[in-house]
Amino acid sequence: MSFTLDRDRLVETMREQADIGGTENGGLHRLALSDADKAVRDWFDERLTELGLDVRVDEFGNMFARREGADPDADPLLLGSHLDSQPYGGIYDGALGVVAAMEFVHELEARDIETERPVEVVNWTNEEGSRFQPAMQGSGVWAGELDLEEEYAKTGADGNTVEEELERIGYKGDEPAAPRGDYDAYLELHIEQGPFLEENDSDVGVVTGIVGFTWGATTYYGEADHTGSTPMQYRSDALVAAADVVTQVRRIPSTLGDRTVGTVGSIEAEPDSINIIPGEVTFTWGFRDPKREVIDEAKERVLDEIDAAAEREGVDYEWEERMDVDPVHFAERCTSAVADAADALGYDAMEVFSGAGHDATYANQVCDTAMVFAVSEGGKSHTEEEYTSWDDCYAAANTYARAALTLAGRAN
Amino acid sequence: MSFTLDRDRLVETMREQADIGGTENGGLHRLALSDADKAVRDWFDERLTELGLDVRVDEFGNMFARREGADPDADPLLLGSHLDSQPYGGIYDGALGVVAAMEFVHELEARDIETERPVEVVNWTNEEGSRFQPAMQGSGVWAGELDLEEEYAKTGADGNTVEEELERIGYKGDEPAAPRGDYDAYLELHIEQGPFLEENDSDVGVVTGIVGFTWGATTYYGEADHTGSTPMQYRSDALVAAADVVTQVRRIPSTLGDRTVGTVGSIEAEPDSINIIPGEVTFTWGFRDPKREVIDEAKERVLDEIDAAAEREGVDYEWEERMDVDPVHFAERCTSAVADAADALGYDAMEVFSGAGHDATYANQVCDTAMVFAVSEGGKSHTEEEYTSWDDCYAAANTYARAALTLAGRAN
Ligand SMILES: NC(=O)NCCC(=O)O
Ligand SMILES: NC(=O)NCCC(=O)O
Repeated sequence: MSFTLDRDRLVETMREQADIGGTENGGLHRLALSDADKAVRDWFDERLTELGLDVRVDEFGNMFARREGADPDADPLLLGSHLDSQPYGGIYDGALGVVAAMEFVHELEARDIETERPVEVVNWTNEEGSRFQPAMQGSGVWAGELDLEEEYAKTGADGNTVEEELERIGYKGDEPAAPRGDYDAYLELHIEQGPFLEENDSDVGVVTGIVGFTWGATTYYGEADHTGSTPMQYRSDALVAAADVVTQVRRIPSTLGDRTVGTVGSIEAEPDSINIIPGEVTFTWGFRDPKREVIDEAKERVLDEIDAAAEREGVDYEWEERMDVDPVHFAERCTSAVADAADALGYDAMEVFSGAGHDATYANQVCDTAMVFAVSEGGKSHTEEEYTSWDDCYAAANTYARAALTLAGRAN
Repeated sequence: MSFTLDRDRLVETMREQADIGGTENGGLHRLALSDADKAVRDWFDERLTELGLDVRVDEFGNMFARREGADPDADPLLLGSHLDSQPYGGIYDGALGVVAAMEFVHELEARDIETERPVEVVNWTNEEGSRFQPAMQGSGVWAGELDLEEEYAKTGADGNTVEEELERIGYKGDEPAAPRGDYDAYLELHIEQGPFLEENDSDVGVVTGIVGFTWGATTYYGEADHTGSTPMQYRSDALVAAADVVTQVRRIPSTLGDRTVGTVGSIEAEPDSINIIPGEVTFTWGFRDPKREVIDEAKERVLDEIDAAAEREGVDYEWEERMDVDPVHFAERCTSAVADAADALGYDAMEVFSGAGHDATYANQVCDTAMVFAVSEGGKSHTEEEYTSWDDCYAAANTYARAALTLAGRAN
């Protein structure tokens, strides 16, 4: 009998997690280090403890559970994703990857399968990067690409730091936030969050790499003043300058690559009154592309536009970097394990390059890495409308489990 | 001895009110129907009661205090302005007009002057229109230009209605919100809030009229989605559409009159996350001009732009009117009372047309009206940097007091 997961259990475990921080519209509001994040971490701990695994928490809140292999000295296979969500996001983003890793371990237990290598399941801290920037923060610190103290100090809109929130929810652990030793490989399942698998009628995606990205935030300082009695030529309107940049961020990608994207996602105007000229406006911007040079070019362009808009409107500004990460390309031995697994299971697989960031980006700095994508209906994600059918979840999870077993090696 | 106010008292009374809801930067945060507004209303009541006047409150919270005249049947002269402020606004906007009216009555008492006509001092509810739209709400209801029940139901960003807030602070009175009888005239002192008096080295402004305005709010409904995995051509970005309109609102006035102004003062994006395409954006817009046709033209243009931006970006929208008021031109007998007073006092006066809205707009529907403007340094207002020197306050208040005495008629 071929190695597949238990479909009903997969669905049941997905539903369980979706209840923790679930919204009335069937989405998920489980921001990193919030009370809901604490609750789902407790649940993760409980479920893995039930499977007989010890769960350790590192000083950045990343959670690891290890199942020993036949050869305890072999470098382990790392499996997982993240349980935090976007504000009013979907129930699949991140969670499906953690659940698939948990179900894989459950299936090993249920079938009394011993693997050659140890297998570890991980739940990374703050993958989403919405409440606190940057994204993939926990895996970035763990991989040594981000500095622990700098990331501890990052603050969200509520003014609390990451470190304070880790302490508050009781998930600032004792272990160093770093690999305990060498890892053989990292494998992550995630929903695609884009339209390509569905458009190509594919069952599952073999991810060959992940775009890099640049994120920043700009604040314009204009002059708050009366909207009625201040003639147009006397104005320094911070929102007019910001609007110019929003327009350019929409346009810049069309002058670069066909996979380039650019977005202003967040904007706040002060004092935000119908009859006051906006005196201060802060907005975020981001660009992504599979090529480093394109990202650099986009960043240069937007900084030029920011400067030009400031000049036109007579406002001052400052900007800060919120994230900068290189594109990655996965190791062939890992991507072919995924492709072979899909093949063996009779799924129609397609190679895709991820436009979303993933913890696999940083794990790839530590060991060979690959990812499996599940079909996203309509390509929608970071919204409550995100949807992947249970059939598509199951196809991806089975592909994932089979590839994991190949990479871990079966010992009995 | 010519009739002038007590400079020290004027300054002292201005300072007293500025302490109620004062900010650490020397501004004022006394939003309509807030706790600070309640406190300043209590203060107003106390001070006028000390002057021996009865204070009555109408059902919309407008406060009136009457000093009888020699001829109790003569139509009264109405004097006043508003004590509410913008968010982090200045200490002069509105307050100077109320204080000048209070000091005028004090001076009549101090000098045992009897006027022919009764004199009433008024503090209008929600002139600012920032927390609740429209502006000049209390005087608009009183003048019968706005509907009481409709205005009661208006909500601020916190979701509370005007009526609830009037009840909460104990200022929903028993009197009908309407003129008790005929009024002879209404006179209001206000800071200019614009640059013209200072630029022309004038001591005081004789206001000949007030611009009309149109205010609206538009909400774009795009599709929240992932900023990384959603290709540009799949997007319906509510913020990009809004940015187009912000740009056009900046441009439209330059194609109309030399006094036309247009502003987007407030904007909110949802879900407001660095890596979510904005799914919903609400923003306000407003245009003003001395001519009704220009206001109509501006409104038509912006609605066209709103529609065009929606089409380009593939988003839906709705919009609502927040305010619409005609320009007004004051009666010659009132403006010349102001000009004559300035002349008699040796002040260099200049005629100005107000770009800001004032309660005088609606009072003008009930009786002849005029206004006095005090110099605004740098023309700044609706910001903590708003500034009028005590000398300029005093010059305008004296002009005001003298004009008021002329209009009320001296009986002894
Ligand atoms: N996969 C995913 O949504 N990650 C969050 C970071 C980002 O790509 O915006
Ligand atoms: N005078 C004044 O600032 N009024 C508030 C309403 C407005 O003109 O915006």
